[in-house]
Amino acid sequence: MVDGCPAGLPISEDEVQAELDKRRPLSTTYSTTRKERDRVRIVSGVFNGHTTGAPICMVIANEDVDSRPYEDFRVKPRPGHADYPAIIRYGGFHDYRGGGRFSGRITATLVAAGAIAKKLLSLVGVEVYAHVSQIGRAMAGREPSVDELRRVYENPVRCAVPEAVEAMEGELRKAVEEGDSLGSMVEGYAFNVPPGLGDPMFHGLDSDLAALLFAVPGVRALCLGRGFEAPSLKGSEFVDEYVVDRERITTVTNNCGGVIGGLSIGTPMHVRVAFRPPSTIRKEVRTVNLMTMEATTLKATGRYDPCIGPRAVPIVESCLALVLVDHALNQGLIGAVLK
Amino acid sequence: MVDGCPAGLPISEDEVQAELDKRRPLSTTYSTTRKERDRVRIVSGVFNGHTTGAPICMVIANEDVDSRPYEDFRVKPRPGHADYPAIIRYGGFHDYRGGGRFSGRITATLVAAGAIAKKLLSLVGVEVYAHVSQIGRAMAGREPSVDELRRVYENPVRCAVPEAVEAMEGELRKAVEEGDSLGSMVEGYAFNVPPGLGDPMFHGLDSDLAALLFAVPGVRALCLGRGFEAPSLKGSEFVDEYVVDRERITTVTNNCGGVIGGLSIGTPMHVRVAFRPPSTIRKEVRTVNLMTMEATTLKATGRYDPCIGPRAVPIVESCLALVLVDHALNQGLIGAVLK
Amino acid sequence: MVDGCPAGLPISEDEVQAELDKRRPLSTTYSTTRKERDRVRIVSGVFNGHTTGAPICMVIANEDVDSRPYEDFRVKPRPGHADYPAIIRYGGFHDYRGGGRFSGRITATLVAAGAIAKKLLSLVGVEVYAHVSQIGRAMAGREPSVDELRRVYENPVRCAVPEAVEAMEGELRKAVEEGDSLGSMVEGYAFNVPPGLGDPMFHGLDSDLAALLFAVPGVRALCLGRGFEAPSLKGSEFVDEYVVDRERITTVTNNCGGVIGGLSIGTPMHVRVAFRPPSTIRKEVRTVNLMTMEATTLKATGRYDPCIGPRAVPIVESCLALVLVDHALNQGLIGAVLK
Amino acid sequence: MVDGCPAGLPISEDEVQAELDKRRPLSTTYSTTRKERDRVRIVSGVFNGHTTGAPICMVIANEDVDSRPYEDFRVKPRPGHADYPAIIRYGGFHDYRGGGRFSGRITATLVAAGAIAKKLLSLVGVEVYAHVSQIGRAMAGREPSVDELRRVYENPVRCAVPEAVEAMEGELRKAVEEGDSLGSMVEGYAFNVPPGLGDPMFHGLDSDLAALLFAVPGVRALCLGRGFEAPSLKGSEFVDEYVVDRERITTVTNNCGGVIGGLSIGTPMHVRVAFRPPSTIRKEVRTVNLMTMEATTLKATGRYDPCIGPRAVPIVESCLALVLVDHALNQGLIGAVLK
Repeated sequence: MVDGCPAGLPISEDEVQAELDKRRPLSTTYSTTRKERDRVRIVSGVFNGHTTGAPICMVIANEDVDSRPYEDFRVKPRPGHADYPAIIRYGGFHDYRGGGRFSGRITATLVAAGAIAKKLLSLVGVEVYAHVSQIGRAMAGREPSVDELRRVYENPVRCAVPEAVEAMEGELRKAVEEGDSLGSMVEGYAFNVPPGLGDPMFHGLDSDLAALLFAVPGVRALCLGRGFEAPSLKGSEFVDEYVVDRERITTVTNNCGGVIGGLSIGTPMHVRVAFRPPSTIRKEVRTVNLMTMEATTLKATGRYDPCIGPRAVPIVESCLALVLVDHALNQGLIGAVLK
Repeated sequence: MVDGCPAGLPISEDEVQAELDKRRPLSTTYSTTRKERDRVRIVSGVFNGHTTGAPICMVIANEDVDSRPYEDFRVKPRPGHADYPAIIRYGGFHDYRGGGRFSGRITATLVAAGAIAKKLLSLVGVEVYAHVSQIGRAMAGREPSVDELRRVYENPVRCAVPEAVEAMEGELRKAVEEGDSLGSMVEGYAFNVPPGLGDPMFHGLDSDLAALLFAVPGVRALCLGRGFEAPSLKGSEFVDEYVVDRERITTVTNNCGGVIGGLSIGTPMHVRVAFRPPSTIRKEVRTVNLMTMEATTLKATGRYDPCIGPRAVPIVESCLALVLVDHALNQGLIGAVLK
Repeated sequence: MVDGCPAGLPISEDEVQAELDKRRPLSTTYSTTRKERDRVRIVSGVFNGHTTGAPICMVIANEDVDSRPYEDFRVKPRPGHADYPAIIRYGGFHDYRGGGRFSGRITATLVAAGAIAKKLLSLVGVEVYAHVSQIGRAMAGREPSVDELRRVYENPVRCAVPEAVEAMEGELRKAVEEGDSLGSMVEGYAFNVPPGLGDPMFHGLDSDLAALLFAVPGVRALCLGRGFEAPSLKGSEFVDEYVVDRERITTVTNNCGGVIGGLSIGTPMHVRVAFRPPSTIRKEVRTVNLMTMEATTLKATGRYDPCIGPRAVPIVESCLALVLVDHALNQGLIGAVLK
Repeated sequence: MVDGCPAGLPISEDEVQAELDKRRPLSTTYSTTRKERDRVRIVSGVFNGHTTGAPICMVIANEDVDSRPYEDFRVKPRPGHADYPAIIRYGGFHDYRGGGRFSGRITATLVAAGAIAKKLLSLVGVEVYAHVSQIGRAMAGREPSVDELRRVYENPVRCAVPEAVEAMEGELRKAVEEGDSLGSMVEGYAFNVPPGLGDPMFHGLDSDLAALLFAVPGVRALCLGRGFEAPSLKGSEFVDEYVVDRERITTVTNNCGGVIGGLSIGTPMHVRVAFRPPSTIRKEVRTVNLMTMEATTLKATGRYDPCIGPRAVPIVESCLALVLVDHALNQGLIGAVLK
């Protein structure tokens, strides 16, 4: 359910579907083979090919849920999953099938909403991209160009730096062989963000983006620009000096990732998002039988994603798009163009 | 203005003041000598020594603002500050004195609100702490004990690991001599958080905390638990296995920092917050004269904080307390005790 | 989509359906013969017969929409309907079929949500009722008893005062014969509301209820207690004096309708809601052709509701229930009972 | 605290004060002689004579509060006041001095906020007015003209129909002599509201306005247009037919009060607000001693307002202005003009 989209935006189910397809598991060794078709249906808010100004309700049916294994997890909660705290939080009444509201599947809704946000942003020239910059020990090694980012969906690991793809594939292959999983890093970019977008304090671009990204299962850390390195740096190394370039103000470096004081400064927005390794692995892990309060173990048998990063690329793009479009609408940037 | 505090909590101006005093600049070489007394006055919401259930309005007068330097920054925006995007955002009408809404002084309000949150949390046994774990290249080296955290305000760098204090002081001294500044890391902890606190998706403990922390000027990155290292780790290394300890469920490790799926799991909540080095340094930095669009430079002459971390310790504690108390109130934990 | 319902409430589709059936048009001369079956399907938030704590999504499919007449209304807007302002508001992009978001059909969602609210309120003994107290010139003449209110759905005009039913039916019959419609008054009651429920100022019980009721198409006025008469009365006539009755505090009169300063005082909550006569009538009404800006006329040919009141009875009940349950949840009254 | 006002609006303390002065009690027999000077001070959000885009904090000090009588009301709650439910709601911890949050004094804040809203609306030509149309049995008898509304503050009863003033004064004089009070009706108007302003359902102009007006102490009923009479009318009498007037669409009648489906239709917005007679009268009223649970009585001795209406005129104007400006800002109407 997407509220706040103005009337008159041309949008089709196919456009939303194209974004959802980017999130689908790949038919490769790296990804889960659970069937997740994610067919979207727009049931309200779009009429004659345009948004109506009413809330846009999109439905993605869950077609393949085998609830049996999840029943076990009510007694033997899976480490690294929300099974145990959810039992406490909802007194055992929560819908545990497929992991319920704590499943990664909920991110399909972010991607569907993100499709609309991207379309709105395109009206004012803002573009968002993301790619996988690290899988286990394999790193991208450099920043990708905009052109490389545009081709990110051409390789299965979704890394926009071509020379790094092979090493990442190697890491994934090894992890699958060991029955283990790997952490990953996804980096998101927004280009052509006008300066002065955002709000101070509780609704800064960074605050809003952080809140949204931490709603994505598996996100454990994030930074803007070179934020992860900030504690080790000096002011003279970190500060982004202003210069004039082709009659516009810009900065020499972009260590701040495009945002200061919650406001955009006109340089590309740049965010790094650290994903944990998936908790479902083919190795024995210790847990507790909640009925007997005795120690026990679990070991996954099916096939699961060995890494979150590749599937999270369209999600990070969507989070960026949703935050930017929200502020752009509030500040009247898009309304002026849509009419 | 603190809304949502239930009636009947005993609280005094002195208690709030004691928290604010933790944020005051120290009379040392490390910190700014601008006079910031931060005297708090509670003007509504507390009556006969107890909260009334009405919004609590606390006023901290700004006693020492010399607005002259800030007028220059409207023409020559300071790199690393919000001067430039604020001019765009507010069409030049914003109140630039003292840095306005983008100044670090706004965090005094978080600390005042945090004082009330901590008092409420104490009713259910939850305790929050923070300390500086890194300044430049000097690191704490290990996790502090709870007892060490309780004594964190005894040393000027607010590092709870005693053997690391000297090196941090050395880093600061050197930075001050060079007219430079340093980045820092603050780590926050919440103990005795009951399992099942929080909400999934957009109002997870982690989402709410991230949004609040990114509202603090200078925060550039954050993680829960070992989040910064997550991309390099395997699932078998990262997953927190469940065990029984004294008839309660707990985990062997706490890599998740106490939160999964937005919900607490009963282990200590642990967050790391990376602060940028302050942008105001006694070195020349390039900027642009907005009137003439010509290159120019700025160089600070007064005395400013060379590092954010030490003063940010009570702020990180307050952010933790505010998020936890919000969920604890919503879930009825505190109401039951207060009556 | 109902958010905020705690986990563990037993609820079934049949219970929600039973409430929706109260809103269905009657197979009589008085009501529209458009087919509106309003079959509800709960698609999330309920599992194993209990609420899960997740948002409850209920779908009521719109089975019988002939969009053709509504296309004409884009050029010749119907007086008394939202056709004209909606064209301006949404730039012509809104979904006009069946009246879209401005149709009375949207109130089915309030009734579905109200079914859950009523069930939650029943846990703490609160009961809500409503009945039609006026249709055109026919009035109920007196307040109904609680027993009479419980039997309100037994007669087609939904008036709980048996001796007034015939006159109301007569008014309706005459209006139908004339091709005209009639205004009506619905009165709502809540019994066993504990004192001290609500909030002052912007979220008083009365403020919240007024906002919700004015969202119902056709509502044009409302009052609490004897509010409609208040301007003509003296303080000595209006003030509700406190007395002790069976060791509890109550009032002699209930002119305030149970609410003072946004808070309940423990007497029955009583609201009167005035509905306009439906604008669709079998008489010619003047309008403007928006293309040519020339005067033209419209005249309804199909069959429509001659009066809103009878179908609005479950809607007013639902609005009362939704407001009360919201405050009861916030104040922890229901959580304590549900566990 | 007014949030959401864009930067760049010229506004001064004097302009806000001029609005507050309209709410001051008159030096006549009709009104309270408690000293209420209501001096406003703008402490943030305005700089160099213009709004900054930051929240506007205005302080109105409470200079004359004698808390002693209110202490008694904790044991013997005043009928018709919120004393009793507030004791229950806040467990006896609320600040009862001067009636606290339930006092009519809180409406000064609405008038201060309304001053800013009126100024913003003036940028797009929207004007709001109100007047007293009924005091006890004395009625205005007809609608006032716009010119008459502009002169409403020239007579002490704030009735814009000159020939009705004397009878209203007579009613008030008689009530004061009897030690009694009178109910009243205030009617509010907004002119030049463009069509298509508002939102459907929960944030219609009417829903928002009703919520705000019911936050005003003493409001017991309200309607749009001829809403109070709607139950007695036929569709053919109530429907507002569209006609063309000077190339613009308008209606023959304005029974809907300018709002259909939550949206403005371009005709004047018209609301009627019924105020109860004040509960404080110089006659004995029954109450209960909460300590002993025994019957007792109260009788006011000081001087109080015998009627709410005259002082409520600027409050109703402010509520109209606040709701309209909120939607006008959201729909980008004002932003376009302010730049």
